[in-house]
Amino acid sequence: MTAPPCPLCQDDASLWRNDELRVVDAGTPRHPGYTRVIWNEHVAEMTLLDPSARQRLMRAVWTVEQALRDTLAPTKVNLAEFGNQVPHLHWHVIPRWSCDTHFPDAIWAAPAQDPGRQAAWDAFEPRVRGRLPAYHAALRSALDAM
Amino acid sequence: MTAPPCPLCQDDASLWRNDELRVVDAGTPRHPGYTRVIWNEHVAEMTLLDPSARQRLMRAVWTVEQALRDTLAPTKVNLAEFGNQVPHLHWHVIPRWSCDTHFPDAIWAAPAQDPGRQAAWDAFEPRVRGRLPAYHAALRSALDAM
Repeated sequence: MTAPPCPLCQDDASLWRNDELRVVDAGTPRHPGYTRVIWNEHVAEMTLLDPSARQRLMRAVWTVEQALRDTLAPTKVNLAEFGNQVPHLHWHVIPRWSCDTHFPDAIWAAPAQDPGRQAAWDAFEPRVRGRLPAYHAALRSALDAM
Repeated sequence: MTAPPCPLCQDDASLWRNDELRVVDAGTPRHPGYTRVIWNEHVAEMTLLDPSARQRLMRAVWTVEQALRDTLAPTKVNLAEFGNQVPHLHWHVIPRWSCDTHFPDAIWAAPAQDPGRQAAWDAFEPRVRGRLPAYHAALRSALDAM
């Protein structure tokens, strides 16, 4: 029996890439600005990378975080590297707002139960979405300069 | 109106500490080995730290991950920095096993619904718990050498 092909080993539409990594818009409807940084090589854990590669990967993660903060001004940025479903290094970089559907919980938890939360988010979300082109432009330029 | 005191600015029982950070057993009953790395200074985002401080914090996170892998051999290590509830930098470093209560989802998601999962975990979990003293000893020694 052969293992199924790793989806992160396949190429995909990226916002930016170099020989080692690519930066992708996660495209999740509820979390505009959610960005992934994917290491190209099929490696499962950060401590399986040599320290300099690890540092280059994290430098891309910090660059995404900074561009998110500069252009979208989220309440908080969330960072996560899980890989339980796909053991191929990828970082989730997620801008969060106090009125988003899950705040203050992780986006993997159940949505917030506050009455009025969805309406507040529906009113706010177009402002975030409208800023995405500016975010992507700033991000590409910061990654080029990295 | 004054903000409530930040719980992560209070001292707590740590496995290891230096002047900048401390490493704490999360003490969550369902996830033995779950460890937190807490930056002592009250800072909200990784990109608010200067690059060398950021690197020192991440070096501690990698040291925890390596010690978890070396002593507990988890299926995967999960890393996360959220801070939505407490905007004071802290990393979650969580060993995961394919039979744990939430695998392959994030521990913040709903538990796995597989029939028999809880029984499989109840049978396996004492082996993890029995290795915690070895993990903590290896971790302290690796952090001392960091």
